[in-house]
Amino acid sequence: MAKDEQPRPEARKPRGFPDKTAAIIAAERRLVDAISAVYRRWGFDALDTGPFEYVDALGKFLPDTDRPNAGVFALQDDDDQWIALRYDHTAPLARYVAENWATLAKPFRRYAAGPVWRNEKPGPFRFREFIQCDADSVGVAGPAADAEMIAIAAEAMKAAGAKAGEYAVRVNTRLLLDGVMEAAGVEDPATRGIVLRALDKLDRLGTEGVTLLLGKGRKDESGDFTQGAKLKDNQIERFLAFAAARAGTRSETLGRLGNVAGSTKSGAAGVEELAAIDTVLKALGVGEDEVTFDPAIVRGLEYYTGPVFEAELLREFHDADGNPIRFGSVGGGGRYDGLVARFRGEAVPATGFSVGISRLAAALAASEGQAADGPVLVLVLDQAEIADYAAMTSELRKGGIRAEMYLGSSGMRAQMKYADRRGSPAVVIVGGDERAKGIVTIKDLKAGAEAAKAVADNEAWRSERPGQFEAPRGEMVQRIRAIVEAGQ
Amino acid sequence: MAKDEQPRPEARKPRGFPDKTAAIIAAERRLVDAISAVYRRWGFDALDTGPFEYVDALGKFLPDTDRPNAGVFALQDDDDQWIALRYDHTAPLARYVAENWATLAKPFRRYAAGPVWRNEKPGPFRFREFIQCDADSVGVAGPAADAEMIAIAAEAMKAAGAKAGEYAVRVNTRLLLDGVMEAAGVEDPATRGIVLRALDKLDRLGTEGVTLLLGKGRKDESGDFTQGAKLKDNQIERFLAFAAARAGTRSETLGRLGNVAGSTKSGAAGVEELAAIDTVLKALGVGEDEVTFDPAIVRGLEYYTGPVFEAELLREFHDADGNPIRFGSVGGGGRYDGLVARFRGEAVPATGFSVGISRLAAALAASEGQAADGPVLVLVLDQAEIADYAAMTSELRKGGIRAEMYLGSSGMRAQMKYADRRGSPAVVIVGGDERAKGIVTIKDLKAGAEAAKAVADNEAWRSERPGQFEAPRGEMVQRIRAIVEAGQ
Repeated sequence: MAKDEQPRPEARKPRGFPDKTAAIIAAERRLVDAISAVYRRWGFDALDTGPFEYVDALGKFLPDTDRPNAGVFALQDDDDQWIALRYDHTAPLARYVAENWATLAKPFRRYAAGPVWRNEKPGPFRFREFIQCDADSVGVAGPAADAEMIAIAAEAMKAAGAKAGEYAVRVNTRLLLDGVMEAAGVEDPATRGIVLRALDKLDRLGTEGVTLLLGKGRKDESGDFTQGAKLKDNQIERFLAFAAARAGTRSETLGRLGNVAGSTKSGAAGVEELAAIDTVLKALGVGEDEVTFDPAIVRGLEYYTGPVFEAELLREFHDADGNPIRFGSVGGGGRYDGLVARFRGEAVPATGFSVGISRLAAALAASEGQAADGPVLVLVLDQAEIADYAAMTSELRKGGIRAEMYLGSSGMRAQMKYADRRGSPAVVIVGGDERAKGIVTIKDLKAGAEAAKAVADNEAWRSERPGQFEAPRGEMVQRIRAIVEAGQ
Repeated sequence: MAKDEQPRPEARKPRGFPDKTAAIIAAERRLVDAISAVYRRWGFDALDTGPFEYVDALGKFLPDTDRPNAGVFALQDDDDQWIALRYDHTAPLARYVAENWATLAKPFRRYAAGPVWRNEKPGPFRFREFIQCDADSVGVAGPAADAEMIAIAAEAMKAAGAKAGEYAVRVNTRLLLDGVMEAAGVEDPATRGIVLRALDKLDRLGTEGVTLLLGKGRKDESGDFTQGAKLKDNQIERFLAFAAARAGTRSETLGRLGNVAGSTKSGAAGVEELAAIDTVLKALGVGEDEVTFDPAIVRGLEYYTGPVFEAELLREFHDADGNPIRFGSVGGGGRYDGLVARFRGEAVPATGFSVGISRLAAALAASEGQAADGPVLVLVLDQAEIADYAAMTSELRKGGIRAEMYLGSSGMRAQMKYADRRGSPAVVIVGGDERAKGIVTIKDLKAGAEAAKAVADNEAWRSERPGQFEAPRGEMVQRIRAIVEAGQ
């Protein structure tokens, strides 16, 4: 241990990596299992590519493309090559597919569920590790494959526990965005970028804010000024009409989009693409309330080459203090025909969907609260009888009951307090008297707590001992089971 | 994408991080779930401390203590502090407990299941990431807590699928090792180290090899010479008697150990400790075939301060080629009263158990083979009817059947081959004829493959089409379900 030689380290945790306790771990697990089951049902097989990739293989799809290792956790391997923790599941998939191209069954359909890491400034609800759950089809061209991914996104939201009306998948396509740019006469890539970022903010800033961003620019509440695209009024008009084209049904939206962006080749192709997606969605039974076409959806354009979509949680959550939490986008995806081409030269069509599990689980855990499902505690009142307490605890466990024998060194009062802290439904108390009589004293902690509210004073409480009763030792398991089941 | 500007990266994977496919992922998941359920039933709650720790907090419990970052994957955070990926679950637990000491319910019982990382030379079956599944009790002194851990180890082996006689937990204690050293008059720490490493090899080298290692040294098959402890014959005698003290029952072993090492204070205390453990094990119903006392068990002595134990898989596995695989130790644990003290100064008693999931899962996956549970494939023979194929696939899925519509661009022969590669139980074939008649053609691929063996030639195969039949469209789901269920 060498504790005399070394200075004592401070017990502290790297920022952005919270310690996760049981409730959030269970919520994440439930979601991963439910969404993985959807992926499996649709014919995807699990693949785990491992945590590290070579930095050059990982590529530069993160914000700061000037610094090669910005945004990722990178280190030099013992052969001096730089490796980095994956920042998503898609870049490693592209490497895997390229590396194993010759032997893969194609199309290649895989799902992944596991942590990804981003070396970003941590902050409240900004973690540096989070779990993503992805499905991807590689070697598939054409809108039917995209429609399938979109339908899977909707089904994943349902599997996560969202009910009808509590979620929506919003779909757009790169072709339409190209089409409206062309129709509006915007060709400069930098200006196109400003326009897309502006459209992406429609939900948050409304028409007024976006109009400013498309025009001369906008000052936000903090006084920061965002440069505008400096478009003319008729151009702005066209983009606003485009962004507002979402209608009650997918067919109606397509009609409106045809009017605004259908005059160009890209725009017409975009409308046709969405129409083909719509046909397959209908065949798959995906409702109008589940999937909408929304031209204001903009996602990473260096990455996506065709349809793009976002899965949004509309249901309003409340945290433990009753404050509303709006979640918005919890997943997204689209077509990325260029990613495998980085390795292979030739384009390999692919489409995928990714859900951010950590955010979703945090929401569900915050809103649903934690079920108290602590272990039944067998108090240890006499160390000489430890084997007897062990046998009782074992009996409970063999009866299917989560149970623990108190193993600390404190007395009865501290043991009762420990049971409270652990959320134990009941404790088993056996002292000399009980042992002599062949009985156990059982305390139902929930019933006890409720009864205690009604008891006038400490004196009365001590004499009445609410929720506490005696039972023959042979009935211990069944009596405890009744308490545990009543509490569920 | 900038693929014109950048050189094409090579699609290659960092060494020691294998890509895991579905069978091994499923095997690992099953084990983690089964063993976590055991931990939960015994009253442990899940805790995930996250991947990174500060290097100074992680401590130096890895082989090469001269290089601070040897053995771990370390990097500098943006505030210049060194952080490293955890190499086990115990060091982060010690940090967590020290950091949250004031608010924790004590004893603190947690389990962890997740990857750990070791920056070691990779090799065959030597991975740099593997999954460990741990349970620890912190704030517990005394042999009852150790007995509990040992019983949990046995139960975890059962939960992993080992039957009676296929596993054993072998228990020793640091006190006994100290006692026999004292009794034999070995005081020099370096010599003690050589002796312990020699005892640890009894299983592998036998009495003869260990005698050499305790004496003048041993040359192995490759010609490498290992320095011996240079003990006298009567000392060697005593250690061999000690190491061979394992008898048919725990009580018998204790009797023998009393004779060999009981004359010293430490030795007597060690016998007493194991006797107390035996009492609790008996109360917990842990059989003599499940847990034995074995003085030849030696584990990391810088780390463990009391009882130590190893869980061993005795069952012989066979790989896909029928070669026997002996697994030996798949988990271990013991008492480590000093680990939290690194942070807090005062000793905090603790005891734990850890199973290496990855090794175990690799064994089970290798021996059990992969169940073919691919998706039912709906062939796509006419792109204009894609919506119809989508609807059929959706119908199968809604009927609880794993199903996929072919989304590649190849013809029927390639689609059939794809179904084979995926392990599909059946394919659904609908061309113009079937559609006109309102029927589907179903091919049972397993029945087809078996029948094909009996068919004389290609000509006959083409006319007979073994395993293939027609069914009304309305019966598709039930006919497919019958095939899927028959194959399970």
